Amino acid sequence: MSIPLAAQPLRVIPLGGVGEIGKNATLVEYGDDLLLVDAGLKFPEEEMLGIDLVIPDLSFLKEIQGRLRGIIVTHGHEDHIGALPYILASIDVPVYATRLTQGLIEVKLKEHRLLGKRRLETLTTGRLLDLGPFQIQPFHVTHSIPDSVGFAIHTPAGTIVFTGDFKFDQTPVSGPPPDFGVLAAIGERGVLALLSDCTRVERAGYTPSERVIQRAFDDLIRDRPGRIIITTFASNIIRVQQAINIAYRHRRKVALIGRSMENNCSIARELGFLEFPEDTVYRLDDVRRFPLNEVVLITTGSQGEPSSVLSRIASGDHRQIRVMPGDTVILSATPIPGNEETVARTIDNLMRLGADVIYEPLAEVHVSGHGSREELKLMLNLLRPRYCVPVHGEYRHLVLYRRLAAEVGIPVENVMVAEIGDIIQFDEDGVHKVGHHPVGSVLVDGVTVGGMSEVVLRDRQHLSQDGVLIAAITLDRTTGAIVAGPEIISRGFIDATPNGHGDLLREARDRVRDAIQEMSESTVEYGFIVSKVKETLSDFIYKQTRARPMILPVVTEV
Amino acid sequence: MSIPLAAQPLRVIPLGGVGEIGKNATLVEYGDDLLLVDAGLKFPEEEMLGIDLVIPDLSFLKEIQGRLRGIIVTHGHEDHIGALPYILASIDVPVYATRLTQGLIEVKLKEHRLLGKRRLETLTTGRLLDLGPFQIQPFHVTHSIPDSVGFAIHTPAGTIVFTGDFKFDQTPVSGPPPDFGVLAAIGERGVLALLSDCTRVERAGYTPSERVIQRAFDDLIRDRPGRIIITTFASNIIRVQQAINIAYRHRRKVALIGRSMENNCSIARELGFLEFPEDTVYRLDDVRRFPLNEVVLITTGSQGEPSSVLSRIASGDHRQIRVMPGDTVILSATPIPGNEETVARTIDNLMRLGADVIYEPLAEVHVSGHGSREELKLMLNLLRPRYCVPVHGEYRHLVLYRRLAAEVGIPVENVMVAEIGDIIQFDEDGVHKVGHHPVGSVLVDGVTVGGMSEVVLRDRQHLSQDGVLIAAITLDRTTGAIVAGPEIISRGFIDATPNGHGDLLREARDRVRDAIQEMSESTVEYGFIVSKVKETLSDFIYKQTRARPMILPVVTEV
Repeated sequence: MSIPLAAQPLRVIPLGGVGEIGKNATLVEYGDDLLLVDAGLKFPEEEMLGIDLVIPDLSFLKEIQGRLRGIIVTHGHEDHIGALPYILASIDVPVYATRLTQGLIEVKLKEHRLLGKRRLETLTTGRLLDLGPFQIQPFHVTHSIPDSVGFAIHTPAGTIVFTGDFKFDQTPVSGPPPDFGVLAAIGERGVLALLSDCTRVERAGYTPSERVIQRAFDDLIRDRPGRIIITTFASNIIRVQQAINIAYRHRRKVALIGRSMENNCSIARELGFLEFPEDTVYRLDDVRRFPLNEVVLITTGSQGEPSSVLSRIASGDHRQIRVMPGDTVILSATPIPGNEETVARTIDNLMRLGADVIYEPLAEVHVSGHGSREELKLMLNLLRPRYCVPVHGEYRHLVLYRRLAAEVGIPVENVMVAEIGDIIQFDEDGVHKVGHHPVGSVLVDGVTVGGMSEVVLRDRQHLSQDGVLIAAITLDRTTGAIVAGPEIISRGFIDATPNGHGDLLREARDRVRDAIQEMSESTVEYGFIVSKVKETLSDFIYKQTRARPMILPVVTEV
Repeated sequence: MSIPLAAQPLRVIPLGGVGEIGKNATLVEYGDDLLLVDAGLKFPEEEMLGIDLVIPDLSFLKEIQGRLRGIIVTHGHEDHIGALPYILASIDVPVYATRLTQGLIEVKLKEHRLLGKRRLETLTTGRLLDLGPFQIQPFHVTHSIPDSVGFAIHTPAGTIVFTGDFKFDQTPVSGPPPDFGVLAAIGERGVLALLSDCTRVERAGYTPSERVIQRAFDDLIRDRPGRIIITTFASNIIRVQQAINIAYRHRRKVALIGRSMENNCSIARELGFLEFPEDTVYRLDDVRRFPLNEVVLITTGSQGEPSSVLSRIASGDHRQIRVMPGDTVILSATPIPGNEETVARTIDNLMRLGADVIYEPLAEVHVSGHGSREELKLMLNLLRPRYCVPVHGEYRHLVLYRRLAAEVGIPVENVMVAEIGDIIQFDEDGVHKVGHHPVGSVLVDGVTVGGMSEVVLRDRQHLSQDGVLIAAITLDRTTGAIVAGPEIISRGFIDATPNGHGDLLREARDRVRDAIQEMSESTVEYGFIVSKVKETLSDFIYKQTRARPMILPVVTEV
């Protein structure tokens, strides 16, 4: 196999999706032209206090927008499309996606008041798309959302393949099986580099087919005496379809509950990716007219998110749904790392209300949408790439993928373990990092996009550990004498009520006053007073409590 | 089987360990006499910001200390002994434990300067202990720490059995297999109530024997080119013994690293529960003289705790140990729920340094110390109790245990799903809750035990989400005119640097000033000004940013 290498170097630059799960976005560069593949977000890590979303850096994209030929999108999951409205708010570039993915993107653009203001084009498998030097060939893959594709991107310097998120599901529930013929043909033509999903590289063997869920749902729903509540990701249209089908088989009526569930299902149905059997799906208000043992509710909340439908049901806060003994709740999802505790609490609360709760590993009610080791090897053997860049994984997944690729004969030096921002070049000499773009992450806090510096997060960490102590003092500008205060205010620090540590704060106040009075007039300089107050208070509190609250002196001169 | 029921009711009161994992402690009450079984702690949940430990309520124990005949302890894990020093600091009551457990308790008492000041007695299996109306029969169980026991507590009202933490390991690595004969004999004599471990009730079948680790370690260590680092719980003496044995077989030298690892191993060795083969275990300084491929380091840090040896190695902060390509790190433990992210980060960091990291599910390098469903059923069939109270589990585990007990013929109404503080009585009429003791948890923050009210934790939550804004104003006491300020100080709120939201804070300051100046002199009342400032600032900030930082007005009158 010989791959012609053009004069122009071909590069990929991951803006996310390597060394982390989520926030997938990769730039492809050939000469002056750029192409962005996916634009996802991730949910914040535990210590990112108060942060709602994490998206790739925007400012970088703004600089290069003149060279950007378009954004191509593999599928409609948040970690592949979630950053689009933020990116499209600042740059105007066409987005190409398959029909369902496009529909889901439109929902987002509508929410951000961008619908109609940006170009959204439809991709179809089997039809090539030319964008400058990039000839894009979308191919069908099986994943946990319909209409998922991967891309072969043909360039004068060779072909790069993005698998997108995939598994090799031989018996998919929605859509055809994987297109082995196309993959083999792309492999025959020659693949310079493969950017492969590697999330599940820790798992041996094959990921079970989505079809096993059908059997599990059927067994669980058949003889249940009461209502059934099934919870899954709002984007898992295929799972929702299975739940609806089984409900129909057992003559139960279905309601879809939760804003994202309703929105996604409505789009999917409109576009023909979700079918409602006759007389089966009702509005929640209408489904409540049926006896409990004829009802299936499909809800959001599989991650225990506090404001989700299931969490509100579990804590008895849902306006219309009260869980009771006889009800069965099926969690058809596994917790994303970091959500284990909130999911466990939701299960406990549902059980307290008397519900029978079914979850992994009690029954096989969830399968992953990502391929395991044998599937990753199969993809490698179909495509036989010269180079590999694993994506969509934590750092350890990338390293394990390199070892897996070696098992099927790809030399370790041909597999690039990248960090976000690395500029990876493929040329005559192999694959190498030729630079690094300082692209970071943008933290989204409520409606504030960015502006979340390290300092802000560090302060929140500090505040969350030991709270804050404020020492307010008013001094005479000329004499330096205390005019009012010191007053010590504490929040999130140990209890300062009369039964608590009131004495401690009283003594702290005396110490601060003494410290100020000890200073001679000559040294009365604003900055000096502030640091003296801080030091005095900090030392005293630490000695007494071994705690280090944030100390904020407020010194006013009048 | 007939069980004589005496006039005095027999009761158990869980002070922890039901509806949660950790913090095991159960009171047994017969007439005027009380017995405490275990006194553990748990590690705080995610939202308990700044909290280090959670122990059962102390004040309750102080009230009843005159009736308390003693504390009996099943084994030496933190979640069964960790609260002892806190309890013994305020009450003086004898503690009974097997030799190794006693040794581990002594280490704790020493740290809290209580050693020699409290009575510690040795328990031996096969020897009965009489404490008032309680005749205590300790029996050997297999678990992940040696010298673990369960208790049959014979009383005039019948026998209560505590399994302690257990699995049925038919091929244990340390000590004999489970004592089926004694369990069967206790069952023959008649068991009124069984308080059984139920942590692993979600898992079908049997938990694998500890012995499988030996094969895994052997396979992993045999051909490794460099240094081996094995990390496990410091209390898992059996795992440490296996690691040492395999190191010896492959002629490698071992160093034990980490304070708790060194302490525990030293006690265990002193008492004969850990054996060092000749010329194998060295101090870290000495082991460094050997070539890397002749070294095994056994360290703490299996939970990714930031200050542990492994975390410091992973972040390049360990003074003596630098990980490099060729090194192999084995994580011989699974993350406790809530620690998944820190463990994942440790693995990523070690891989960044070039180490080969082996963890579940890549190899079978850990097995649980708790029995799975078939083992829980075996215990039930050996003891044939009339009543059951599952312990050592989250609420869902208790509920699942009730269903499991039903499978072996125990009526569901005979299985009590308890909450902490429930007073559970066994009498002629069955098992029922006869009351509730308001025992809660005590949160330990640094050296502060207790004093952590709900308010403090709520404030920390608030501070951690959006930070704090302080508005300092000095007013003229008589005219109400502004003498100084308003000055707005922010911490943990969005960035207020020149490139950040400086304008926002400047405008906020103007709004506050305008609001104060608008108030006529007649309304100038301190409380009113404070709430006006708070309201003005809060509304303005929310409208501009959708964030709700904590607002603290500091109004001084001069």
